[in-house]
Amino acid sequence: LSAKYESLDYDTCENHLLLDEERKRGYPFIIWKDIARWFIVLLIGVITALIAFIIDICIEEFSNIKYEQLKKSVDKYVLLDELYIPYLLWVLTNISIVFFGSMLVAYIEPVAGGSGIPQVKCYLNGVKVPRVVRIKTLFVKAVGVISAVVGGLAGGKEGPMIHCGAVVAAGISQGKSTTFNKDFKIFQYFREDHEKRDFVSGGAAAGVSAAFGAPIGGVLFSLEEGTSFWNQALTWRTFFGTVVSTFTLNFALSAYHGHPGDLSNPGLLNLGKMEPFPFQVYELPVFIIFGVIGGLLGALWNYINYKLAVFRMRYLGEPWLRVVEACLVAAVSATCGFLMMFLLNDCRPLGEDPTKVPLQLFCADGEYNAMAAIWFQTPEASVRSFLHDPMGSYKPGSLVIFVVSYFLLSTWTFGLAVSSGLFIPNLLTGAAWGRLMAIWIQYAIPSMSINPAKYALIGAAAQLGGVVRMTISLTVIIIETTGQISNALPIIVTLVVAKWIGDFFNEGIYDILIQLAGVPLLPWEPPPLAHNIYASEVMSHPVFTLRTVENVGHIVEMLKVVTYSGFPVVDPPLADENEVTTYKRLRGMILRSQLIVLIQNKIYNENANTTWSNLKVDMNMFRKEYPRFASIEELDISEWELTCTIDLRPFMNPSPYTLPHRASLPRLFRLFRALGLRHLPIVNDVNEVVGMVTRKDIARYR
Amino acid sequence: LSAKYESLDYDTCENHLLLDEERKRGYPFIIWKDIARWFIVLLIGVITALIAFIIDICIEEFSNIKYEQLKKSVDKYVLLDELYIPYLLWVLTNISIVFFGSMLVAYIEPVAGGSGIPQVKCYLNGVKVPRVVRIKTLFVKAVGVISAVVGGLAGGKEGPMIHCGAVVAAGISQGKSTTFNKDFKIFQYFREDHEKRDFVSGGAAAGVSAAFGAPIGGVLFSLEEGTSFWNQALTWRTFFGTVVSTFTLNFALSAYHGHPGDLSNPGLLNLGKMEPFPFQVYELPVFIIFGVIGGLLGALWNYINYKLAVFRMRYLGEPWLRVVEACLVAAVSATCGFLMMFLLNDCRPLGEDPTKVPLQLFCADGEYNAMAAIWFQTPEASVRSFLHDPMGSYKPGSLVIFVVSYFLLSTWTFGLAVSSGLFIPNLLTGAAWGRLMAIWIQYAIPSMSINPAKYALIGAAAQLGGVVRMTISLTVIIIETTGQISNALPIIVTLVVAKWIGDFFNEGIYDILIQLAGVPLLPWEPPPLAHNIYASEVMSHPVFTLRTVENVGHIVEMLKVVTYSGFPVVDPPLADENEVTTYKRLRGMILRSQLIVLIQNKIYNENANTTWSNLKVDMNMFRKEYPRFASIEELDISEWELTCTIDLRPFMNPSPYTLPHRASLPRLFRLFRALGLRHLPIVNDVNEVVGMVTRKDIARYR
Ligand SMILES: Nc1ncnc2c1ncn2[C@@H]1O[C@H](COP(=O)(O)OP(=O)(O)OP(=O)(O)O)[C@@H](O)[C@H]1O
Ligand SMILES: Nc1ncnc2c1ncn2[C@@H]1O[C@H](COP(=O)(O)OP(=O)(O)OP(=O)(O)O)[C@@H](O)[C@H]1O
Ligand SMILES: [Mg+2]
Ligand SMILES: [Mg+2]
Repeated sequence: LSAKYESLDYDTCENHLLLDEERKRGYPFIIWKDIARWFIVLLIGVITALIAFIIDICIEEFSNIKYEQLKKSVDKYVLLDELYIPYLLWVLTNISIVFFGSMLVAYIEPVAGGSGIPQVKCYLNGVKVPRVVRIKTLFVKAVGVISAVVGGLAGGKEGPMIHCGAVVAAGISQGKSTTFNKDFKIFQYFREDHEKRDFVSGGAAAGVSAAFGAPIGGVLFSLEEGTSFWNQALTWRTFFGTVVSTFTLNFALSAYHGHPGDLSNPGLLNLGKMEPFPFQVYELPVFIIFGVIGGLLGALWNYINYKLAVFRMRYLGEPWLRVVEACLVAAVSATCGFLMMFLLNDCRPLGEDPTKVPLQLFCADGEYNAMAAIWFQTPEASVRSFLHDPMGSYKPGSLVIFVVSYFLLSTWTFGLAVSSGLFIPNLLTGAAWGRLMAIWIQYAIPSMSINPAKYALIGAAAQLGGVVRMTISLTVIIIETTGQISNALPIIVTLVVAKWIGDFFNEGIYDILIQLAGVPLLPWEPPPLAHNIYASEVMSHPVFTLRTVENVGHIVEMLKVVTYSGFPVVDPPLADENEVTTYKRLRGMILRSQLIVLIQNKIYNENANTTWSNLKVDMNMFRKEYPRFASIEELDISEWELTCTIDLRPFMNPSPYTLPHRASLPRLFRLFRALGLRHLPIVNDVNEVVGMVTRKDIARYR
Repeated sequence: LSAKYESLDYDTCENHLLLDEERKRGYPFIIWKDIARWFIVLLIGVITALIAFIIDICIEEFSNIKYEQLKKSVDKYVLLDELYIPYLLWVLTNISIVFFGSMLVAYIEPVAGGSGIPQVKCYLNGVKVPRVVRIKTLFVKAVGVISAVVGGLAGGKEGPMIHCGAVVAAGISQGKSTTFNKDFKIFQYFREDHEKRDFVSGGAAAGVSAAFGAPIGGVLFSLEEGTSFWNQALTWRTFFGTVVSTFTLNFALSAYHGHPGDLSNPGLLNLGKMEPFPFQVYELPVFIIFGVIGGLLGALWNYINYKLAVFRMRYLGEPWLRVVEACLVAAVSATCGFLMMFLLNDCRPLGEDPTKVPLQLFCADGEYNAMAAIWFQTPEASVRSFLHDPMGSYKPGSLVIFVVSYFLLSTWTFGLAVSSGLFIPNLLTGAAWGRLMAIWIQYAIPSMSINPAKYALIGAAAQLGGVVRMTISLTVIIIETTGQISNALPIIVTLVVAKWIGDFFNEGIYDILIQLAGVPLLPWEPPPLAHNIYASEVMSHPVFTLRTVENVGHIVEMLKVVTYSGFPVVDPPLADENEVTTYKRLRGMILRSQLIVLIQNKIYNENANTTWSNLKVDMNMFRKEYPRFASIEELDISEWELTCTIDLRPFMNPSPYTLPHRASLPRLFRLFRALGLRHLPIVNDVNEVVGMVTRKDIARYR
C-alpha cells in the first residue's frame, strides 16, 4: 500500500463550533442547504453536459476533417500507386495529434491519464488520489481525450467524460478553485469531505449520463462502481442531476444537428437505435456461450493490460518515454488500419450504410472498402456500423484480423499517457466478434435467419462486461444507448455469465489498476475467516497523542516528526506520580489539518481575552482552507508562540467512534467501512488509548 | 411507537461458538455458503415467478368466466328491460367472492391485508412485523389477492406479489417451516437475521420482477424502498434473482399463451408494448403540469386513505366489521360500474380494440359500450385499454366521471381487509385523466396531432408517483412494463415533479401507513438540529444487566419481570465493599433468545464435566430454534436448576459496539442505522454501562 494516498473523512467533527453554528442558524439553514444542494446538482448536470457536448463536437468535427483530407490523399495516390504517401500522412497526423495530448498528460497532469474511472472509484471509496478533482486535471482531460480520439488511438471518450463530471462536481460544490486562487465564498458549508463526496458521486453519474445518454445508467453506475454509502435522498438528487445532464446534452446536440428541441431524435443515441430482436428460449445457450467468450477474452485483456502496466511502472518512469510510447502506439494503430484496408480487399456497394468517408481504394467503381470505412471514422461510429450494417457487410476473414488486432491495440492503448477510456474499444472488439459469430452460426445453420445486429450487440456487451465486470449498470447503459429495452434479457444473461467467468481468472480492470497503484481501497465485505484476528493485532502503537490543553511547541514538533494526520486527544497524566500510566484516557480526536489552522490563526489560550474568543473563530476558519491545508513547514511560528498553549477541547471531535482492543477484525472493518472513518482509536477496558487503526491498517488484510 | 414490534439484529454475535465453527470448517465453508446463496436465490426466483404465474392465470381465467356470464345475462335482460337482474347478479358475485377473501384475511391472517409493501419495507428496515413472512401469510395473500381482483375491487395484484416474493425468500432460505413444523436441516447457517434479510430483499425484488416483468426495476425497487444496507455482491445476487424470476414467468406465460419459449412476445409485457413517442422540448411544461397534477392528486389520495385508516383503527376493530366493509365496497364498486355503463351511453364501433367481452347494451348493432368494456375486465386490462386505444375512443364526460369515481373507490379499497395493491388502480386513474388531458389539449390546439397514449402513460406515472413517491425504480418499472425506453425522459420529469409536489403535503402512502402503525422505522438521515441532544438523554437507565457467571434463578426471574430482549453482561461488582459502584464494567451483550436456549438445553456450569462441553454445544443449538424462540413461561425449570449458574462468556457477544454517554444523537443514529444494531449499551468514561439505547429510543426523534 502506497503512503501517498490520504483518506477522506466522512465522519463529521461535532465540535463546539458546529454546535454553535447549528444553534445560531437553526432550521432555515437546513432548508437552505437542501435547496442549495439541488441547485448545485442542477449546475453540475448542465455544465457536465456542456463539456461533454464540446468534447463530442470537437471529436466529430476534427475527425471529419482529418479523414476527409486523408481520403483525398488516398484517392489521389492510389491511382499513382504511391499509397505510401497517404500512409505516411496518416501516421504523421496521428503521431502529431497524440504527441500533443500525450505531452499534456505526461508533463502537466499525469493523473489525467487513462479513463479516470479508477481514480473516481477510489475517491468515492474514501481515498484522496492527489489532484484528481482539480480544474487543471479537467482541462488536460478534456483536451487530452479529444486528441487521443482524433489521433486515431483505440480509445473512447466515455471514461474521461465521467471523470470530467466528477471534477465539475467537486469544483462547483466548493464554490472555489485553488488552481485559479479564486474563492467565490459560496457553498462554504459544503466544504467537508462528506458533502463533497456526495457531489462527486453525482457528478460521475452526470458524466455517465452525458457520455451515454443514460440517466438511469448513470445513477446505477455510481451505485455499483462507486458509492460506498447508500442514501435515498442522495440517489434522488443524483438522478435529478443525470436527467438534467441528458436533457442538456440532447438539447445542445439537437440544436447542433439542426432540429433544436427534438429530444427524441434517435441520432442523439450513442450507438444508434436498435430494432427489438425476437428471441427464443433455445437461444439461451448461445447467450451463455457469448458470455463465456466475453469473460475469457475480458480476463485475457485485463491480464495483458496488467502486465503492460507493470512494465510501464518498471521501465517507463520518465515522462518522455511515456510520450514516445503513446506516439508509437499512434503509429502502430495507423499502420494496422492501413495494412488492413490495403491487404483485405473487402469491397461492398456504396449507398448501403451511412459511412461518411467511403474509400474506393482498389474496389470497383460504385463500391468501397469496408475495412477502410471502419478505420476512417471514430471508434464510436465503427461500433454503430457493426451494430447496424446488414448481414454480409463484412467478410469473416477481415473480421478475424480486425478482432485480433483491435483487441491487442486497445489493451495496449489503455494505460498510455493519454486520456482515453476503454468502453468504446471493447464494445468495438466485442461487436466485431459478435458479428463473426453471427456469420458462423448462419453458416452452420443456414435455415435460420440470423440478425447480425443482435449478436454484435451481445458480443459487445459480453466483451465489455468481461473487462469491467459491471452487470446491472452496464445492462442499463447498453439499453439506454441503444434505445431498446426488449433486448434486456439476453444482455443480462450474457453479462452475468461474463462476470462469473471473468472473475474466475482475475478482477475487473479497474480493481486491478487500483491494486497495482497500492491504493488502500476497502472492499465491500470484511476478509473471510478473520474473526480470530483482533484489533490489538491490527492497530499501530504506541500512539502519538495530544493533551487536552497542549503546548504549541510540542504540537509543532510532533507535526514535524510524524506524518500522521490524526491524533487522539487525551487527559493529562494523573497527578499522582507513583502511579505509572503509560496510557491515557481518550477525550477526543483532532486532525492535523485542524491543528494547522489553529496555529495559522494563532488561536492560543494566551490570546483568549483579546481577539479570538468572540470574533474570528467559527467553522469558516477551517472551511476557508479546505481542502488544501498548509504544511507545518510552511507556517512561520515565532519563539514566543512556541511557549503558548492551545485548548483543543472546543475544536476536537469530542466523541470519536472507538473499539476495544479485543474487537475482531470483521467488526472493526464493518464499523470503519459503514461509517467512512479515517481514524479509529483502539481503547482498553478503562477507555485508555492503546492503539490506532487507519484505513491502511485494514486494507492490508484481504 | 408500538411495543409489539421487535427489531432484527444485523450484528453478528462473534462468540466462541462462531469462532470454533469458523476454525473447524475453514475456507471451503465460505465458498460453499456463497454457492448456496446463489442457489437459494435461483430457487426464490423460480418459485416466486411460479406463484405469480398461478395468481395471474387464476385472475385471468376466473375474471373471464365471471364477465362472460355477466355479459350473457346483460345481453339477455337488456332486451327484456330488466337490467336490475344482471346488476344484482353482478353485485352478488362480487360480494360473495370478496366475502371469501375478506374472511380469510380478517380471521385467519390480518397481516396479509393490503399490499404488503409497507410490511416488507419495515422488515428490510430492521423491524420484525409479526407473522409477516410466514407460509400461512403467503397462502392467505395469494388466495386473497385472487379473490379481491376477481371480486371486482379497485385493487391490483402487484403489491401482494412482492409480498409473496418476500415470504418465499424467507421460507426457502431458512430451510424450514414452523407452520408445518418441518425442519429440512438445510441452509441452517443462514438462520440469522442478517442473512435472512438479504434473502428477503432479494425475494421482494423477484416479486417486483414477476409482477411487472421488470428485472432491473425489481432491483431498484428493493434498493429505493427497502434495503438499508448497500452491498455490491448482494445487488448482483438480487439481480440474478430478478432475472431468473422474469425468465421463469415469461417462459410459463409463453407456454400458457401457446407459443412456448418465445420470450420476446409482447403479450408478456404487463401494460402492452408502447410505441416510442417523439417529444419536443416545448412539451416540457406539459410534463411538468402533469407532474404537478399527479403530485396534488396523489397527496389527496394519501390524505383520504390516511383518514380512512384512522377511522378503521378507531371504529372498525372487529374482524366482522372489516368483512362487512369489504363487502360494501365490493357492492359499491359494482354499482359504480353499472351506473356508468347504464347512464353514459358511450358507444363505439366493434373491432377496433381487443376488448374480450364487448357489451352492446343500448348501443346500435355493431357497436359496444366503451364504459362497459372498461368495467368488464380486470383493472390491469383497463389500463392497457387506456394506454393503447386510439384517440376518440372515450368521451371526455365519461372519463371525468370515471376518474372521480375510480379515484375515490381505489383510495377506499386500499386498506380494506382484503389483500390488494394500489399500483394498478392508480395507474388506471392516472391513465384516465391523462387521456382526458390529451383530449382537452387536442381541443385547445386542434392543429397539433396528439397521441393519447403518450399522455395516458404520463398521467398514469404521475398519479402513481404522487401516491407512492418513488422515482427511479418507478421509472424503470414503467419503462420495463411498456417495453419502451424512448419515453424515459418525460416519465422521469413527471415523476420527479410529482414527488416534489406531493412531498410538500404529506409523505408517501407507505410511510404514512407505517407511521400510523407505530412502527419504529429508522429514517435515512439523523433528525436535523440534534447535535445538542446527547446519548445520556436518549438512553434508558438503569440498565438490567447480568454478571459474566450468573445464577439461573436470577436470569429466569429477570426474564419474567422485564420484556427487554438484550442484556449487557458485566463484571461482578468489585470485592472491595467500601467502594460503592452502581455501574459495572461492560463485558459483552447477550440476547434473551440466547438465554432461553441456554436454559432449555441446560447448559449449566454444574453439568460441565458431563455432557455439554464436548458434545451438543455449537451454533446449531441456537439455529434449531431460530426464529421463534420459546418464551420463558413455557420452559419448565426445576428447583434445583434455579440454583445452578451459567457462564455466559462463551455465548455472549464479547465486543458489542458502544458509545460514550456524551455522544450526540446524530452520531448515535448513524452508528445504529449503518450497522443495523438492535441494542447499543451506553458507557461512561471508564467503560461502565450507564444506559441502553434501542431502535425505539431513537425512532422517537423525528
Ligand atoms: N496518531 C497516531 N499515532 C500512532 N500511529 C498512528 C497515528 N495515526 C496513524 N497511525 C498509524 O500510521 C500508519 C500510517 O497511517 P495513515 O497514513 O493511514 O494515517 P494518517 O496519515 O493519519 O491518515 P491518512 O489515511 O489520511 O493518511 C498506520 O499504520 C496508522 O495506524
Ligand atoms: N437491558 C435493558 N435495561 C434497561 N432498559 C432496557 C434494556 N433493554 C432495553 N431497554 C429499554 O427498554 C425500552 C423498550 O425497549 P425495546 O422493546 O426497544 O427493546 P428490546 O425489547 O430489548 O428490543 P426489541 O427492539 O427487539 O423489542 C427502550 O427504551 C430501551 O432503551
Ligand atoms: Mg498518511
Ligand atoms: Mg421489545
